[in-house]
Amino acid sequence: MRIVIVGGVAGGMSAATRLRRLSEDTEIIVLDKGPYVSFANCALPYYLSGTIKDRDQLVVESPEHLRQRFRIDVRPNTQVTAIDPDKHQLTAVAGGKEARIDYDRLILAPGSTATIPTIKGLGTADNVFTLRNIPDVDRIMASLNHDAKTAAVVGAGSVGIEAVENLTKRGIETTLIEAGDHILPFMDEEMAALVSRETTQHGVTLKLNTRVDEIANHQLKLSDGTTVDADLVILAVGVHPNTDTAQQAGIKTGPRGGIVVDDQYRTSAPDIYAVGDAILVKQLITGKLTSIPLASPANRQGRQVADVIMGLNRRNQGGIGTAIVRSFDMAAASTGLNRRQLDEAGIAYQTIHITGQSHAAYYPGGTPLSLKVMFDAKTGQLYGAQAVGKVSADKRIDVLSVAIKAKMSISDLPELELSYAPPFGSAKDPVNMAGYAGENLLEGLSDNIQFDQVDDAVRNGAYLIDVRSPKELQRDGRLPDAVNIPLDSLRDHLDELPKNRPLIVSCRSGQRSYLAERILKNDGFDVKNLDGAFLTYSAAYPERIQH
Amino acid sequence: MRIVIVGGVAGGMSAATRLRRLSEDTEIIVLDKGPYVSFANCALPYYLSGTIKDRDQLVVESPEHLRQRFRIDVRPNTQVTAIDPDKHQLTAVAGGKEARIDYDRLILAPGSTATIPTIKGLGTADNVFTLRNIPDVDRIMASLNHDAKTAAVVGAGSVGIEAVENLTKRGIETTLIEAGDHILPFMDEEMAALVSRETTQHGVTLKLNTRVDEIANHQLKLSDGTTVDADLVILAVGVHPNTDTAQQAGIKTGPRGGIVVDDQYRTSAPDIYAVGDAILVKQLITGKLTSIPLASPANRQGRQVADVIMGLNRRNQGGIGTAIVRSFDMAAASTGLNRRQLDEAGIAYQTIHITGQSHAAYYPGGTPLSLKVMFDAKTGQLYGAQAVGKVSADKRIDVLSVAIKAKMSISDLPELELSYAPPFGSAKDPVNMAGYAGENLLEGLSDNIQFDQVDDAVRNGAYLIDVRSPKELQRDGRLPDAVNIPLDSLRDHLDELPKNRPLIVSCRSGQRSYLAERILKNDGFDVKNLDGAFLTYSAAYPERIQH
Repeated sequence: MRIVIVGGVAGGMSAATRLRRLSEDTEIIVLDKGPYVSFANCALPYYLSGTIKDRDQLVVESPEHLRQRFRIDVRPNTQVTAIDPDKHQLTAVAGGKEARIDYDRLILAPGSTATIPTIKGLGTADNVFTLRNIPDVDRIMASLNHDAKTAAVVGAGSVGIEAVENLTKRGIETTLIEAGDHILPFMDEEMAALVSRETTQHGVTLKLNTRVDEIANHQLKLSDGTTVDADLVILAVGVHPNTDTAQQAGIKTGPRGGIVVDDQYRTSAPDIYAVGDAILVKQLITGKLTSIPLASPANRQGRQVADVIMGLNRRNQGGIGTAIVRSFDMAAASTGLNRRQLDEAGIAYQTIHITGQSHAAYYPGGTPLSLKVMFDAKTGQLYGAQAVGKVSADKRIDVLSVAIKAKMSISDLPELELSYAPPFGSAKDPVNMAGYAGENLLEGLSDNIQFDQVDDAVRNGAYLIDVRSPKELQRDGRLPDAVNIPLDSLRDHLDELPKNRPLIVSCRSGQRSYLAERILKNDGFDVKNLDGAFLTYSAAYPERIQH
Repeated sequence: MRIVIVGGVAGGMSAATRLRRLSEDTEIIVLDKGPYVSFANCALPYYLSGTIKDRDQLVVESPEHLRQRFRIDVRPNTQVTAIDPDKHQLTAVAGGKEARIDYDRLILAPGSTATIPTIKGLGTADNVFTLRNIPDVDRIMASLNHDAKTAAVVGAGSVGIEAVENLTKRGIETTLIEAGDHILPFMDEEMAALVSRETTQHGVTLKLNTRVDEIANHQLKLSDGTTVDADLVILAVGVHPNTDTAQQAGIKTGPRGGIVVDDQYRTSAPDIYAVGDAILVKQLITGKLTSIPLASPANRQGRQVADVIMGLNRRNQGGIGTAIVRSFDMAAASTGLNRRQLDEAGIAYQTIHITGQSHAAYYPGGTPLSLKVMFDAKTGQLYGAQAVGKVSADKRIDVLSVAIKAKMSISDLPELELSYAPPFGSAKDPVNMAGYAGENLLEGLSDNIQFDQVDDAVRNGAYLIDVRSPKELQRDGRLPDAVNIPLDSLRDHLDELPKNRPLIVSCRSGQRSYLAERILKNDGFDVKNLDGAFLTYSAAYPERIQH
């Protein structure tokens, strides 16, 4: 049997090596349009700064070694131009020569390509790059070595954020331009704002709600009327699946061109399978088809399609989507659905913001950890979580990703037995704490109001009480229109509070205000806790804080 | 209603504060025999070295602040000497005066006490301490400040390991004496061996399989015939529940004196509840009653018993047990059952050892991560996991603790969507890899043999092949009786291998040897993979490696 694989990076190469482990006598041919197979896409930004110094590190496996160890026939620089499903044959071009290759099974793992936005002057500019593969990186490095002093990165997704960090670390004055209202579209605005702060504190100029109108003479004209100098420009506005050839062959595709596959990776054409960035997968929570163009699922899918072809019972189970990115010293991670996705899906959910510490407060070196968890307003089923912090955001999101996948409820989080010793965590981990806080909401012991609802509520008559100490208000700033009553004297002032107005309580992180909420509820007041309190509100609206 | 709580640290104080949040008009009295309530037990070892510099950091809350903020009547230095369940009354002694205190509900959270082994001379020695509370630490600090140069720690559990690290960091020459055959009894021997190595590399003298026969004149006589100088001695051989008073009151206790409670923390006596180190809980996997004397469960139980008393529907769900300890730069963590517990429970299980990296290999700063996962030999249900590494052992064990709690199978691990970017992980995380390896065992694609079975197998005729490169053998050492055939030339030597003997293959971590196993299996050989390969074998038996 001959199995041909189109695309030799994550999904394709995982399929090829697993096929060999399952069968010594199958002929395995891998075709890749680029000069390198099995390269480390995710490493590329870090090569720009020299964090990864050795260019050889970008290449995981060479064709020669794959031939020797796995007896895989790897053919780089080979472009597949046509597929004939009826004949079980494809057409490939290498070195200007066209060849036909027969296959018994075909696996499409063509990946995705950087989307190029429409910008005036882009066609003639010689300093605009994408950042998707090794030739891209070679071109950027040549430009950097050619005395570049300024750069612009267009698009503030993960690749854009990583590009900005590494250009800045190289000493390049960098501007980040994003059309949306916050960076990192997989995160919600108030969580992304914590990363924006980290980015600008490292000297990056950030332009939100801004588009590039024109590129000319190492300068960008922006939609806000300003111009930005940029000796080089990196476009990182997203990717789209490489599925032109598949579509021309009549293979069924869906939203945004992703290949439609069944749960065993079969496309609509006989004996043709597809995996990786190019396919659509089922979002486990909404049940809808979506694209999750990440390395981990691609690797898993590649291995699974090999199993399916070799007769093992393996099925794609769909995905919840987990992502992480670092910006300088800060990590931002997300799993499951974010707020926009929940709203689009019409799901009724509750939200908890917790600010804890990476480890026990009394042990030195701890750093703040901001955690957001969203769950079903009635059943408590976990839908999504986001974390931002210098240390261990990855850990908390990984824990929550397993909990979401296991269809756990917010009430299960207090039961999680997470490892605790002073250097690693807290006896009540932030994940446990989110569970306690969420359970309080579900059981009606607490009610909360979100950072973006409180100003309206106050305008409509709510009485906002900040229970921090006067010293904290002076140091960190005041919430607009809040009355300050420190927690420990709240019980002495109950008589002075308006009985006929809804109350909202806030503190720094939301923990003291929760106690205040309970004191007030026990006294019969109609009261809500400002979720995430001052820390979340001031991250989202730094300009509204009064100093 | 008056609720009296005996014990004001983790479980007791969590109960007290939750009670107040649920009810403003309940009288809450907390009695503690020690001078401090709500102190940070887990911080104590780190105060010895000055890692935690400020003694105030050891105290989380003062009685005054608890009174002010929570209106809790906290009474330190108050010893409960008797409980009369019929009268709903207890006897307490404070400042030499005895008083009777009535209660409507009583919560016992007395914690546990350091076990004192029987050693000749112990009664008259003035330099022997335990390390359980602030007065203990004050005494140890006085001794250290009195020109101590040498120390011995008896018992290599978590407290012993942390004591050794902090004494060493203070410049004290320290000997660790353990009666068992490996340190850290919650870990298995080959995993604990990785931590032993870290400990001795930092200058600690480690005595395994050794008991202390006599203490005299700042010297210990050991069961191996040697003596050890010790200006101070810390006893850390374990703890037992503080349940004498409960037992005298006729409250039912079980194995090793732990208080028996129902799943709502009710003891056998009416209106008396118990939580924390002193109670027995259900081990979720075996279903047996056990003691899990850790801070996290105590905190959870304290909160839950408050809920129960206030009429909320809360139940103790049992526990799987998760623990972590750091020894110098190395962390060792465990969740679920270890090998000894699985063997005692008579469960048939399979084992996978994986050595991966804390994050992507191409990104600088990664450190080795050793992971062990045990699961049901037939169903794949996860039973236990252990991790040792400088970075992110906590993360992997937390992930696996959730998977175990969710009753996931080893075949679910490849599906976990863990956060991946180069500084944080790998596209195929070690947890995913363990899942792939375990699934291969379950499906019969791979068979493994454990590090402690291979020597016997070879003696009984198995043919052991090491597929590492000759350079690696020279650098790292050879397995006894192994034939070296580098992986990439294995296919050329198939004819030379014995057809009528079982084969065992090994490499460095087990990944290359798995490919070798598949090549050999596809060629009809009877072959097993040495699980964990050279790294696991050499950690367990460093003395058997040939250089």
